[in-house]
Amino acid sequence: MQFTAGQIAQYIGGEVDGDADVAVSSFAKIEEGTPGTLTFLANPKYTHFIYGTQASIVLVRKDFVAEQPVAATLIRVGDPYSALARLLEVASQAMRPQLSGIEQPSYIAEDAELGEGCYVGAFAYIGHGAKIGKNVKIYPQAYVGAGVSIGDDTVLYAGVKVYHGCNIGARCVIHSGAVIGADGFGFAPDAQGVYHKIEQIGIVEIDDDVEIGANTTVDRATMGRTHICRGVKLDNLIQVAHNVEIGHDTVMASQVGIAGSTKIGSGCMVGGQVGFAGHIDVADGTFIGAQSGLAKGTDAGARIMGSPAMPMGEYARMLAYQKKLGALFARVDELERRINSQKYE
Amino acid sequence: MQFTAGQIAQYIGGEVDGDADVAVSSFAKIEEGTPGTLTFLANPKYTHFIYGTQASIVLVRKDFVAEQPVAATLIRVGDPYSALARLLEVASQAMRPQLSGIEQPSYIAEDAELGEGCYVGAFAYIGHGAKIGKNVKIYPQAYVGAGVSIGDDTVLYAGVKVYHGCNIGARCVIHSGAVIGADGFGFAPDAQGVYHKIEQIGIVEIDDDVEIGANTTVDRATMGRTHICRGVKLDNLIQVAHNVEIGHDTVMASQVGIAGSTKIGSGCMVGGQVGFAGHIDVADGTFIGAQSGLAKGTDAGARIMGSPAMPMGEYARMLAYQKKLGALFARVDELERRINSQKYE
Amino acid sequence: MQFTAGQIAQYIGGEVDGDADVAVSSFAKIEEGTPGTLTFLANPKYTHFIYGTQASIVLVRKDFVAEQPVAATLIRVGDPYSALARLLEVASQAMRPQLSGIEQPSYIAEDAELGEGCYVGAFAYIGHGAKIGKNVKIYPQAYVGAGVSIGDDTVLYAGVKVYHGCNIGARCVIHSGAVIGADGFGFAPDAQGVYHKIEQIGIVEIDDDVEIGANTTVDRATMGRTHICRGVKLDNLIQVAHNVEIGHDTVMASQVGIAGSTKIGSGCMVGGQVGFAGHIDVADGTFIGAQSGLAKGTDAGARIMGSPAMPMGEYARMLAYQKKLGALFARVDELERRINSQKYE
Repeated sequence: MQFTAGQIAQYIGGEVDGDADVAVSSFAKIEEGTPGTLTFLANPKYTHFIYGTQASIVLVRKDFVAEQPVAATLIRVGDPYSALARLLEVASQAMRPQLSGIEQPSYIAEDAELGEGCYVGAFAYIGHGAKIGKNVKIYPQAYVGAGVSIGDDTVLYAGVKVYHGCNIGARCVIHSGAVIGADGFGFAPDAQGVYHKIEQIGIVEIDDDVEIGANTTVDRATMGRTHICRGVKLDNLIQVAHNVEIGHDTVMASQVGIAGSTKIGSGCMVGGQVGFAGHIDVADGTFIGAQSGLAKGTDAGARIMGSPAMPMGEYARMLAYQKKLGALFARVDELERRINSQKYE
Repeated sequence: MQFTAGQIAQYIGGEVDGDADVAVSSFAKIEEGTPGTLTFLANPKYTHFIYGTQASIVLVRKDFVAEQPVAATLIRVGDPYSALARLLEVASQAMRPQLSGIEQPSYIAEDAELGEGCYVGAFAYIGHGAKIGKNVKIYPQAYVGAGVSIGDDTVLYAGVKVYHGCNIGARCVIHSGAVIGADGFGFAPDAQGVYHKIEQIGIVEIDDDVEIGANTTVDRATMGRTHICRGVKLDNLIQVAHNVEIGHDTVMASQVGIAGSTKIGSGCMVGGQVGFAGHIDVADGTFIGAQSGLAKGTDAGARIMGSPAMPMGEYARMLAYQKKLGALFARVDELERRINSQKYE
Repeated sequence: MQFTAGQIAQYIGGEVDGDADVAVSSFAKIEEGTPGTLTFLANPKYTHFIYGTQASIVLVRKDFVAEQPVAATLIRVGDPYSALARLLEVASQAMRPQLSGIEQPSYIAEDAELGEGCYVGAFAYIGHGAKIGKNVKIYPQAYVGAGVSIGDDTVLYAGVKVYHGCNIGARCVIHSGAVIGADGFGFAPDAQGVYHKIEQIGIVEIDDDVEIGANTTVDRATMGRTHICRGVKLDNLIQVAHNVEIGHDTVMASQVGIAGSTKIGSGCMVGGQVGFAGHIDVADGTFIGAQSGLAKGTDAGARIMGSPAMPMGEYARMLAYQKKLGALFARVDELERRINSQKYE
């Protein structure tokens, strides 16, 4: 399917600057654009690519001023990235495999409830007493344990595992390999140093509009629940331990690890490979740089970095000092030389 | 099911302090207790919650002295956490889905051996010549490769993968997504920098009473075995490379990575996101703080932290020095100023 | 099956030093050798084991000079590790389960194409329009989404998940739990701080001769492709974000994380737990020590370490300075004492 610059501009509320009849049928990154593709310019770091791109259409900010000739037709919009997002959504719906019905063989316990419009892929397993909402997509080889509840329009991709008793909200997306509700890591050593399991009888509760990345693990609570609040977005390979709470609209990049009973506020942004100690409180709106390690909690709106984590400004100063350490040693050598020579003057 | 404080105290060998007839039917964390729940106080950090908890019963230490009135009935015991663990075990057995028999469709090779009392979930695969002990639970979509042996009472949760030839002991628990016996990472470059695979013909051997977390990976040996000894507990998303050995009763938090041929002693405690270089020896009883990096081995009983790892005391001092670096630069500036001004006096 | 030292030497082009008739039937590490096993000595760190090994045959370098008597028969070769690799390959082919044909039940869409000699394990899923080459092995419970293409002789181990539209080359090996083509992590916040999904309509493209470790995740591109070039070897639990490119013959140890749109050159070596920021360019032949963090790109042939990463030499000096910080503080204390006492002299 092809769309002209004029049609696209109308759909996203933009203004055409160039040939309104040029047509595109797919998307490309600006540096990889070919004729017939649409691209966008949002990150200023990529501005120089606009002068050489082969793409037919580029979404740009309303106030974009070209410093050299641009061959492509421009569509000027308030926020090119949002406009792109809207177009991608349309394209995605057209491109995604349309799935519905129950593929065979699959396993659906007799007393499981399944809403209207669901897809259940082959080799998927839906256990005893599970309650699945409407239009839920359960891809092949996914596992829904006994007593699990899943809200409307949620998607479990191929091979997702949800242990018994956990609750997942509406409009969630859970990617392949994610494991929801495995036992929290609880063991108590005896006098001989042999560890005995503490049974984990709590659950995981995931609210609406949460996305969970591939191979991420969210452990069930010892008692009570591990709680992922509305709108949280977790990337791949993240560890969420037992009894953790993650506040609404918090986003985390991949490979973050959160130890048990830690509470993370709402609206936080967490970089990749960050580690959180257990039993700490991270306040709303905390921003945490990649690879940081938090041994203690934060105040609202904190911006921290490093392991152990410290305020960003302090971290930057510490790095600057470290770079000048060699010079500092030399300066102290020189001071000693001079004060020693004074002594014998 | 309900139990009174009196019944519970008798079961765990405790002493009732308050109303022995108050009854509970579930568990809660102390800060989330509601009437009808039992909770516990082990971590002194949570002591203040006991004065406000709505829980009906609290397990406390024998010597606990309340500094304000406590509404709940107390049960005094030697170790509240152990007592709780015993109660959780009873509750867990009552709550867990009771599974037995062979669900269909599943795949069990003709020459596989299956002991009495096993559960095999739908879509589970048991390969050629596998030997499964008694009362083993193999959840749906788990994979047991050719020639694998599994001891009595072991549980493989949904989707666990065990490659051919590996051995797993008795009473082990392996969580969803764990991969046991994938090829070790062995490649040799030729003169052109092209890597050629070194076939990995060894196995993984897991002794009795081991627990392995969700999405953890334990690679097979190049030759011989990768060996996880009795009682080891591994959390989620841990990497254990080829030919690693982990000694008995060692516990590791999530996202730890261990490179090839490293030997880790018994009774070690390893924090989250720690990395071990290959071919090193970590002694018995080593304690390693989160996010540490070990480029070399340790002595028995070492307590280390940091990347590169150093003794805890040294690490603490290094952090203290780093905090005072700015002041140190200022002091050297001042010394230079004074010695320079002296010169011209 | 047994082979004599004479037969083995002839096969690998080596020279027997000792009893050419001694026979072996398996392999062992040098410190674990038993009679009837063959071992090798490549890492000088292990040299002392050769004098005590019980192994019957040891592969050594041509120029190896024993400093004590060696009981084993030696086979002298140019490169013992390569020679071992050749022998392991023969052994591996003999030992590996021979798999072929289509196990039942499996799910193969009517319009999927399957080349000659393929193996499809039970509970494997091959979606609508997928194109599978010759001699491909798709183990049980693997998932091949709609429109996926897979080249000849590739192996997908049990439980691998490949989302729709992705392309995998020939002779690739993908280990259990790996997830190829899950959505990239793309969300745009609105004015209320609520995140909205950016649909990810690109694909993952994996060229020939790539190996991908267990539970590693490679996300699909927002637009265009995430690209793993020929001969790349990725260990377990690695995160490759959307639109990343990894150049040919680059190898990465486990738990590495690469953020979106980063380009990594060819012939790079990346240690375990390294993190890469997004949108950076890492040049060909870069060597990166374990646990490093790269906030910016590198020049060709760079050797870097640390978080933030710096040249190896600078990193070593920084560690050396840190070790002497305590002494430096003491030296400055002393200088201040002396200059203060001078003042009043």
